[in-house]
Amino acid sequence: MAPSKHRIKINVDLGEGYGNYKCGPDEELLPFIDHANVACGFHAGDPLIMQSTVHLCAAHNIAIGAHPGLPDLQGFGRRAMSLTPAELTALTRYQIGALTGFLDAAGCGPLHHVKPHGALYGMTCRDREVCRAVYEAVPKGEGVKVFGLAGTVQEEVAGEMGLGFVAEGYADVRWTGEGGLVIERVKSPWAPEETRAHVTAQVYEGAVTAVTGEKIELPFGDHEVSICCHSDSPGCVEIVKATRGIVDQWNAENFP
Amino acid sequence: MAPSKHRIKINVDLGEGYGNYKCGPDEELLPFIDHANVACGFHAGDPLIMQSTVHLCAAHNIAIGAHPGLPDLQGFGRRAMSLTPAELTALTRYQIGALTGFLDAAGCGPLHHVKPHGALYGMTCRDREVCRAVYEAVPKGEGVKVFGLAGTVQEEVAGEMGLGFVAEGYADVRWTGEGGLVIERVKSPWAPEETRAHVTAQVYEGAVTAVTGEKIELPFGDHEVSICCHSDSPGCVEIVKATRGIVDQWNAENFP
Amino acid sequence: MAPSKHRIKINVDLGEGYGNYKCGPDEELLPFIDHANVACGFHAGDPLIMQSTVHLCAAHNIAIGAHPGLPDLQGFGRRAMSLTPAELTALTRYQIGALTGFLDAAGCGPLHHVKPHGALYGMTCRDREVCRAVYEAVPKGEGVKVFGLAGTVQEEVAGEMGLGFVAEGYADVRWTGEGGLVIERVKSPWAPEETRAHVTAQVYEGAVTAVTGEKIELPFGDHEVSICCHSDSPGCVEIVKATRGIVDQWNAENFP
Amino acid sequence: MAPSKHRIKINVDLGEGYGNYKCGPDEELLPFIDHANVACGFHAGDPLIMQSTVHLCAAHNIAIGAHPGLPDLQGFGRRAMSLTPAELTALTRYQIGALTGFLDAAGCGPLHHVKPHGALYGMTCRDREVCRAVYEAVPKGEGVKVFGLAGTVQEEVAGEMGLGFVAEGYADVRWTGEGGLVIERVKSPWAPEETRAHVTAQVYEGAVTAVTGEKIELPFGDHEVSICCHSDSPGCVEIVKATRGIVDQWNAENFP
Repeated sequence: MAPSKHRIKINVDLGEGYGNYKCGPDEELLPFIDHANVACGFHAGDPLIMQSTVHLCAAHNIAIGAHPGLPDLQGFGRRAMSLTPAELTALTRYQIGALTGFLDAAGCGPLHHVKPHGALYGMTCRDREVCRAVYEAVPKGEGVKVFGLAGTVQEEVAGEMGLGFVAEGYADVRWTGEGGLVIERVKSPWAPEETRAHVTAQVYEGAVTAVTGEKIELPFGDHEVSICCHSDSPGCVEIVKATRGIVDQWNAENFP
Repeated sequence: MAPSKHRIKINVDLGEGYGNYKCGPDEELLPFIDHANVACGFHAGDPLIMQSTVHLCAAHNIAIGAHPGLPDLQGFGRRAMSLTPAELTALTRYQIGALTGFLDAAGCGPLHHVKPHGALYGMTCRDREVCRAVYEAVPKGEGVKVFGLAGTVQEEVAGEMGLGFVAEGYADVRWTGEGGLVIERVKSPWAPEETRAHVTAQVYEGAVTAVTGEKIELPFGDHEVSICCHSDSPGCVEIVKATRGIVDQWNAENFP
Repeated sequence: MAPSKHRIKINVDLGEGYGNYKCGPDEELLPFIDHANVACGFHAGDPLIMQSTVHLCAAHNIAIGAHPGLPDLQGFGRRAMSLTPAELTALTRYQIGALTGFLDAAGCGPLHHVKPHGALYGMTCRDREVCRAVYEAVPKGEGVKVFGLAGTVQEEVAGEMGLGFVAEGYADVRWTGEGGLVIERVKSPWAPEETRAHVTAQVYEGAVTAVTGEKIELPFGDHEVSICCHSDSPGCVEIVKATRGIVDQWNAENFP
Repeated sequence: MAPSKHRIKINVDLGEGYGNYKCGPDEELLPFIDHANVACGFHAGDPLIMQSTVHLCAAHNIAIGAHPGLPDLQGFGRRAMSLTPAELTALTRYQIGALTGFLDAAGCGPLHHVKPHGALYGMTCRDREVCRAVYEAVPKGEGVKVFGLAGTVQEEVAGEMGLGFVAEGYADVRWTGEGGLVIERVKSPWAPEETRAHVTAQVYEGAVTAVTGEKIELPFGDHEVSICCHSDSPGCVEIVKATRGIVDQWNAENFP
């Protein structure tokens, strides 16, 4: 049986530069992706970058989501911080609102989805109170989905709050033996064959091999599936292209 | 002839704390004002403060506007900076969007107005290119007004862009001989009788005495008028109450 | 037996404003204290405030220490963050260096002590690796002491590294049943009699009553003792004065 | 007559990344330079990057200077800001102190020089009050030099304050017709032959051709000369190598 009930898509974090600093080769990635998670100025991104990223995505017909992060540019949002639920809701709402302003101005709304970034993503996978606080900030009744890890608190809370849930795979992130993700402060390089094997297992089997060696089932269930690639991974263009190839092949076989 | 063709109102900058730092006694001011300019996180304000300020304003039926500032918390947005027009548009749009997110979540939108803060306000008074860049970010077609100084570039650009314009008086800011405002990095105290004389002249005569001694006409024209008070002025509660008294008296006499 | 083998002193965190934001009434506190912990720009403080705080302390013959914090102005350094040991050493060294620059320029060095702020203080009490990383940044061989909590990792690591250790009491912080401090994001008010009882117990008995009710011994040992008061506590002037009175009385009785 | 009375050297701005963001290929440039201007955390650089940059420079026997900038990471310190003289002194002192902390810890002091960055450099060239405020923060009596543009306010103020002055040339910056520098927010690429001609003219003739076409004499006088290259210029490795070749050739001919 197909691990996904839907055509599989690809999402990438975009607009993660800041001022003069570049992060990934966003423009090279655009032709190969379906969903963009646009940084909102806290872990990365600034107003000018957000604006141009929105325009680029719109020009490539890419569905635009918000990628809110912790207020920690120096740590690129990958250092866990202890915030109150009220703070988490407010900072997520702030970032979503800011991005929505650019979508509205560009006439390319509405917002497609919300995906927390880095340490905030990890915290929403593990901690129900954090997850509720973050998802509380997602506009309701407008079809905005959340992207997350099936089988974690994210999926449960999305269900409780009536939010559409897109289950993610990861082309360039490994899994722990417990089914969580191995978050790196700075992304390590992947050998091309590693990426291909990792993505192929997710797409064709709905499974991954954890860093501890065992096989882990990814409980995609009935959710849509989107495979995430990171624009700050070394060799990200090759990773995204390889993922596109595998996903397109699988989509052609299963949804001809 | 009455200097204003409309009931005069009062606006105050609110939500200008940051984290644990308080700025003004916002809650004491709320009963006395009509319009709030809510700081949006760049010169002051943070997501939690913005959220609670929006709720407070809504509870007092105060019309909520965005108060975008330069990205300079340390200088409280009162240090001029050289930014490109594209940067100015993007950072204004970002801040308006962020505040709009809180208005939408609280169900108390739409946004009533936009008023740039501090050095950005001064720059939009004097520099047409800056003003156009900032006003470019104001959502069009939704009745959002701009607050500014009649007789300056602000009024002209608002007219060119079809934006509603509310002409401001200032209870706690002095005028230069050339009709500009004297922006202080830290607000100086005013004697109560000074405030009363300054506001009375504006409200009853549409004029002020500049720091250089001459009388300056405030060309309110047909615009609505709102008198601004600053929540970081020493004695701001007394300033706002005194202004309220004068404005109410004038409104009662002219719009019984 | 006297709980302290030395005259007891008083330390206060100073210079914790930022830009236009004031924190505590620093100038009112100066006549009553012995040691200042000067904020270094990460959790609070900016260059201008640091410079003027150094001058104020020098004018009052107060021993000046560095008060490095986490890079989190919005959370006032009171939100725990996950940083690597290398980051902790580097950010502490940076902040100590910056303050030392002001001491050197004012001719009022050398640095007397280092005391981590807020969440960083708590982390150094509990986590040996964090504590070693932070203390690694304290200049060695110059007699710079560390201020910390006797009986915790701080005391042990200071000993291992050959750093002078000053044991702290707290006029306005409560203890957990396990002997740790109850860190508040925003300081709560204390009734004057509470403060007096809390300080008196520490000074006269070397003990406190924990929030859970039991009495806890403070293992001051042979260390110098300094009682900390916070400049952002409501009523801090009264707290400091009360503490001064108790400490002076005890000093007069024990070190006439 | 030789335009320089001393062997000519090369300086580069280093450590201008931030968190996960890289700026230039610092490690590739180190073998080719004499002086490093190390970013101090305001326009670029963070504590960890500063620490590792200091270690790298020390390992290559490069003289280390401080490169203080405006507090504007988003603008990379290249947006002019209106600061008071007191603020300018304090922020320069803060940054110099922070860097000095790393030099002291690495045992590779003392500080060799100070060179303001970007907009702050331009402001110190043109505005005597700004320049005095910035140079006020340079430690006196320790032989710390300032790097600047001969013939501008920088040279005069250095002389008045008794600071050693190193006159700069620029491999990758053009001159205005008035003898100022053309500061770019983002560095443009240079054709290799342009760089060679530009550097050769400075080194061999002490002159440049301005963007307006006329030849401008660079009044190096008796000062030491150091040619600056930017690590964020496209092709900076080639620019630095080309400059090294020309400078070495000239040094060999004139100081055999």
